[in-house]
Amino acid sequence: MRPEGRQPDALRPLSFEMGWSPYAEGSCLISFGNTKVLCTASVEENVPPWLRGQGKGWVTGEYAMLPRATHQRNRREVQSGKPSGRTQEIQRLIGRSLRAAVDLKALGERQIVVDCDVLQADGGTRTAAITGAWLALKAAVAYLMEEGVLKTDPVIAQIAAVSAGVVNGDCVLDLEYEEDRVAETDANFVLTSTGGVIEVQATAEDTPMTQSQFDQIFALARRGVTDLCAAQLKALGQ
Amino acid sequence: MRPEGRQPDALRPLSFEMGWSPYAEGSCLISFGNTKVLCTASVEENVPPWLRGQGKGWVTGEYAMLPRATHQRNRREVQSGKPSGRTQEIQRLIGRSLRAAVDLKALGERQIVVDCDVLQADGGTRTAAITGAWLALKAAVAYLMEEGVLKTDPVIAQIAAVSAGVVNGDCVLDLEYEEDRVAETDANFVLTSTGGVIEVQATAEDTPMTQSQFDQIFALARRGVTDLCAAQLKALGQ
Amino acid sequence: MRPEGRQPDALRPLSFEMGWSPYAEGSCLISFGNTKVLCTASVEENVPPWLRGQGKGWVTGEYAMLPRATHQRNRREVQSGKPSGRTQEIQRLIGRSLRAAVDLKALGERQIVVDCDVLQADGGTRTAAITGAWLALKAAVAYLMEEGVLKTDPVIAQIAAVSAGVVNGDCVLDLEYEEDRVAETDANFVLTSTGGVIEVQATAEDTPMTQSQFDQIFALARRGVTDLCAAQLKALGQ
Amino acid sequence: MRPEGRQPDALRPLSFEMGWSPYAEGSCLISFGNTKVLCTASVEENVPPWLRGQGKGWVTGEYAMLPRATHQRNRREVQSGKPSGRTQEIQRLIGRSLRAAVDLKALGERQIVVDCDVLQADGGTRTAAITGAWLALKAAVAYLMEEGVLKTDPVIAQIAAVSAGVVNGDCVLDLEYEEDRVAETDANFVLTSTGGVIEVQATAEDTPMTQSQFDQIFALARRGVTDLCAAQLKALGQ
Amino acid sequence: MRPEGRQPDALRPLSFEMGWSPYAEGSCLISFGNTKVLCTASVEENVPPWLRGQGKGWVTGEYAMLPRATHQRNRREVQSGKPSGRTQEIQRLIGRSLRAAVDLKALGERQIVVDCDVLQADGGTRTAAITGAWLALKAAVAYLMEEGVLKTDPVIAQIAAVSAGVVNGDCVLDLEYEEDRVAETDANFVLTSTGGVIEVQATAEDTPMTQSQFDQIFALARRGVTDLCAAQLKALGQ
Amino acid sequence: MRPEGRQPDALRPLSFEMGWSPYAEGSCLISFGNTKVLCTASVEENVPPWLRGQGKGWVTGEYAMLPRATHQRNRREVQSGKPSGRTQEIQRLIGRSLRAAVDLKALGERQIVVDCDVLQADGGTRTAAITGAWLALKAAVAYLMEEGVLKTDPVIAQIAAVSAGVVNGDCVLDLEYEEDRVAETDANFVLTSTGGVIEVQATAEDTPMTQSQFDQIFALARRGVTDLCAAQLKALGQ
Repeated sequence: MRPEGRQPDALRPLSFEMGWSPYAEGSCLISFGNTKVLCTASVEENVPPWLRGQGKGWVTGEYAMLPRATHQRNRREVQSGKPSGRTQEIQRLIGRSLRAAVDLKALGERQIVVDCDVLQADGGTRTAAITGAWLALKAAVAYLMEEGVLKTDPVIAQIAAVSAGVVNGDCVLDLEYEEDRVAETDANFVLTSTGGVIEVQATAEDTPMTQSQFDQIFALARRGVTDLCAAQLKALGQ
Repeated sequence: MRPEGRQPDALRPLSFEMGWSPYAEGSCLISFGNTKVLCTASVEENVPPWLRGQGKGWVTGEYAMLPRATHQRNRREVQSGKPSGRTQEIQRLIGRSLRAAVDLKALGERQIVVDCDVLQADGGTRTAAITGAWLALKAAVAYLMEEGVLKTDPVIAQIAAVSAGVVNGDCVLDLEYEEDRVAETDANFVLTSTGGVIEVQATAEDTPMTQSQFDQIFALARRGVTDLCAAQLKALGQ
Repeated sequence: MRPEGRQPDALRPLSFEMGWSPYAEGSCLISFGNTKVLCTASVEENVPPWLRGQGKGWVTGEYAMLPRATHQRNRREVQSGKPSGRTQEIQRLIGRSLRAAVDLKALGERQIVVDCDVLQADGGTRTAAITGAWLALKAAVAYLMEEGVLKTDPVIAQIAAVSAGVVNGDCVLDLEYEEDRVAETDANFVLTSTGGVIEVQATAEDTPMTQSQFDQIFALARRGVTDLCAAQLKALGQ
Repeated sequence: MRPEGRQPDALRPLSFEMGWSPYAEGSCLISFGNTKVLCTASVEENVPPWLRGQGKGWVTGEYAMLPRATHQRNRREVQSGKPSGRTQEIQRLIGRSLRAAVDLKALGERQIVVDCDVLQADGGTRTAAITGAWLALKAAVAYLMEEGVLKTDPVIAQIAAVSAGVVNGDCVLDLEYEEDRVAETDANFVLTSTGGVIEVQATAEDTPMTQSQFDQIFALARRGVTDLCAAQLKALGQ
Repeated sequence: MRPEGRQPDALRPLSFEMGWSPYAEGSCLISFGNTKVLCTASVEENVPPWLRGQGKGWVTGEYAMLPRATHQRNRREVQSGKPSGRTQEIQRLIGRSLRAAVDLKALGERQIVVDCDVLQADGGTRTAAITGAWLALKAAVAYLMEEGVLKTDPVIAQIAAVSAGVVNGDCVLDLEYEEDRVAETDANFVLTSTGGVIEVQATAEDTPMTQSQFDQIFALARRGVTDLCAAQLKALGQ
Repeated sequence: MRPEGRQPDALRPLSFEMGWSPYAEGSCLISFGNTKVLCTASVEENVPPWLRGQGKGWVTGEYAMLPRATHQRNRREVQSGKPSGRTQEIQRLIGRSLRAAVDLKALGERQIVVDCDVLQADGGTRTAAITGAWLALKAAVAYLMEEGVLKTDPVIAQIAAVSAGVVNGDCVLDLEYEEDRVAETDANFVLTSTGGVIEVQATAEDTPMTQSQFDQIFALARRGVTDLCAAQLKALGQ
């Protein structure tokens, strides 16, 4: 039995507050159950130095957690002078995932930075971040199109992310913290609305998983992403 | 004329959401107009090394801003490897102010860390942080008393903070960003509910202020803190 | 056509020099074609602070590249003051993979650090590192058993790693640098000799891959790991 | 009774050695009793990047203490990799105070950096630093005028700084170390020779001060700055 | 008696593998007994910023040790965020020594970086590094001449380095680790093939050496460098 | 001709102010011409962790320059987050040299840190630092003996340091800045009053020196150290 009687293939309650931030070009406060991530997309009219003059844009992501987003307080990363390995891994994942959804040529020589700040953490923060980041990005692009800065939409794919894993031998979707900390396997999937595979990261903590378990959690993730994509479109009013 | 027709001695609309964070021992999401700061108080059953074995507790504060809390995105401080001078100044101010409100002996050998994370910044973030931090601290102490960990309340003073300054020659209370960036003088006052002075930080940016201007802004601050203290008590249900 | 006429499902020429380092408790200089990684396993009679007194051991990995292991010289990471995000990701991957192969209780309260230093880099450095690291670990454990420090072998699984990906629409095994830099998808698989799945990391660079492509590269990886495991046993003289 | 029978409103013995450094464009070794600060003003014919091309100059201050300036040796800040929060606060204070005394347009597109290095510390180092820094700055400007680089004097105000505080319930001026470490309140005032208020920083360590105490220490500081300004002029030979 | 019956004035067995690295413009894997250093010379078509536009080139060296090059594992320097003092000293020494062998004008506005990575350490790593670095540099220059980039050879001197010291009162050449750790004096000499003195670094650990001891070890070093230079020429096929 | 008509074998005017610092256990402000170094010796009743419990003491040195000690202002090292390679080299040299003069067993389990802060730099700062550091150390030991903490003097040798070099083909003693910056060779010698050799560091900048030049500058240094040792004894009142 999962917490609160959730079915193995059920997502937690979802919510999206588009435009939560008054200053960002695009923003979304996304919740996967008790996990809350504020995603803000900032448009900058320049690109990183190594990309200058190539007529292409860039999309990148940053990720952080408030110190008391979690059950126990965590030390701020600025205190140790650098982002942890975990933070860097997640940032790179968010950036890669978003770039796979964007035609960087069509974006033009500008950059969109999507900040994903975890206000509350109850498992699945990186998948909530990616799912919300796509919405913030989409909103920022809508803003650029309204302003006439962009003529065509550079967002060429709809993406969402979800976790799945093996907990006490059962394959389950969208793990919360209590499940995550005892899971045998934890996996994150970034998929497109049309079934394309952008990123798979599956890790067996102690016991290797079987091929069959891997196949089952992948199937759960596909179903979860389908639901997330539907909810994203609704949040965009489509 | 001030933005939105505000009177020189008027605070911006205030709001307090006690218990915003489900995990922290005490928390408050405070708003001074568009400035929003999430204050969470975390209780730790140990003290910094230099204080061990002295039968006294410690209270400290940390402060940060989300990168897109502001009109323009700011780089995360973790990227430059250390908190900026401004951040450190504010953190030290929050910690000193809170400690002036607490009997550290009565707190016992434990530490309360109050994190003040600015979600939106429209001027006055440090004063909102202190005013909200006191509420989060108070809630954490209430929790410790309910749990029977503390028998007597170590919070011996009620404190709040507000800014005041000289803008285009006029003395005004609680500056918002548009006022702050053109102010001749910006000052922050941390005062107790009974008129005690905990901290005064007044800075003339270009033009020195006159003694009379200093006296006027101090008077505005005293009035502001009186209103803030009343609102704090209301937020605590008293 | 692949470089040097290699078949899509063929590994590059493999070589293993066990005991390359005269000082380490276990070592292996592994080559996957032109990729050469020196793996040394060092036994330390203590564990990280957070694990002390639990009667369990620890296995961890570190990874680095010589500045001129590559076609163009890279700046040393010590110059920028911290390991890059990529390095940290790989280090975490090596450590997790090795720990999945070891019964940490049976290892006792000691640590084995496996250093993977890339002397030459021609693609697949992280998979060569894991495959060689398992051999160095195995040799260090053999040393501990010969010395009578360990009575039973704590290595409970045989693991190896290989990359597979989509290059110009073709699914291929064990990409070399020239393939890797133009690949649509690059994936790394850490598997056990008995078909268990320890880690899957698949990344589509520009174009999402199809489910069918993902299935094909996974099948290639399974075949590759079978061959690598056979070669590992031969290197151990079994 | 104060140490050595000093009156509550008396400064410690002052001394100024103008031109102590043979290389700096302006310099002053200032003493407030046993506190000795070497202030050197360096002229640089460029401005920080964010100010370029605006036809304005910049004045900034740096502050440090020799490790054995104090009764107990302090660790060098370079060992911890960054200036402490206290050092940064003082540096920012020195810079702001000096800039309030200078017409940056009249300075032209150049920078004056005033280094304040504490050779001996017996309380009041930051106020001695500001008072001496103004003299070093003034000397550097005199040098630029003699050289014909500047036609008009950009120093538009005379400033000095002094501390005042509450010690054992008494309001006293210019605290030395033995007083400072037991003071209830410590405050620093940067004022102009004509009574203008540039910076007030008052901090109650344990007990909030009363409004009346604040007013008294402010009055002491005004008297102290008047004396310091007279001594500054004498040091300049005016 | 020295280890393995070596004579006081004898070098350890030498070996040179030119061209060990397939990617570097010049490379040499050098061994002084069990000490093995991989030296790679990388040509970069630019110079450090402070040298631009002067029609001169630059030669610099970097030095590092693999963590398990030694009997006990050493922590990677990147973990502590900066090269150690020892590493920096050695890097500076390598760079200075190489530059003394090169006409920087004749090199043209380009840089050669020689990386010296110690794969195994048994004493004398810095002298092996310098001796091998000169060979790698020479090979890189030969490559530039073959490519027609350089018309004349900018290498104007042949250099080599060796250690000598006082061990248990005896003056000996080319100390290995077991000697080095008990030596009263350790000295490193960088000399030219024609008897020129480039660098002398002699350090008495506990007991000062006598003038006569200093003269003896210098004489040993001169003899050692003569042999090293002959071996270098042989490695170059001359 | 040398500046101010100095003879090739002449030291610059020397001065020593013993007890310059009121707080340090031993101190000396030493001048070699315009080079001024403040040396303070601080006694700490503990030793570095790796030396604890061995009944031995430790002596170490630190070195820094004020930013405007030089003709042009230098950036503070704390700004770049770490001591430069040059600073670390000099600190290690000072520490090694002082330890060669002390019987660490006789010192007992305590540490003496000698800080050498360059107030003015005109060449030869490291040799002035060592010469002054020995005096500060000697004074701190005298203090410990007066206090009855030490019964026997642990300082077993008298040391001093001086530079010598080749300038325009001439061998000269104690180079000042104007000579140093054009010297072909710069060497530093740390010797004992009885002719013992503690440290030799000789560096040819462009042109290798001949054996004969090396012998000449060594002879100059021996003469210089003899004079410095006599002056040290005079400063100690012996």
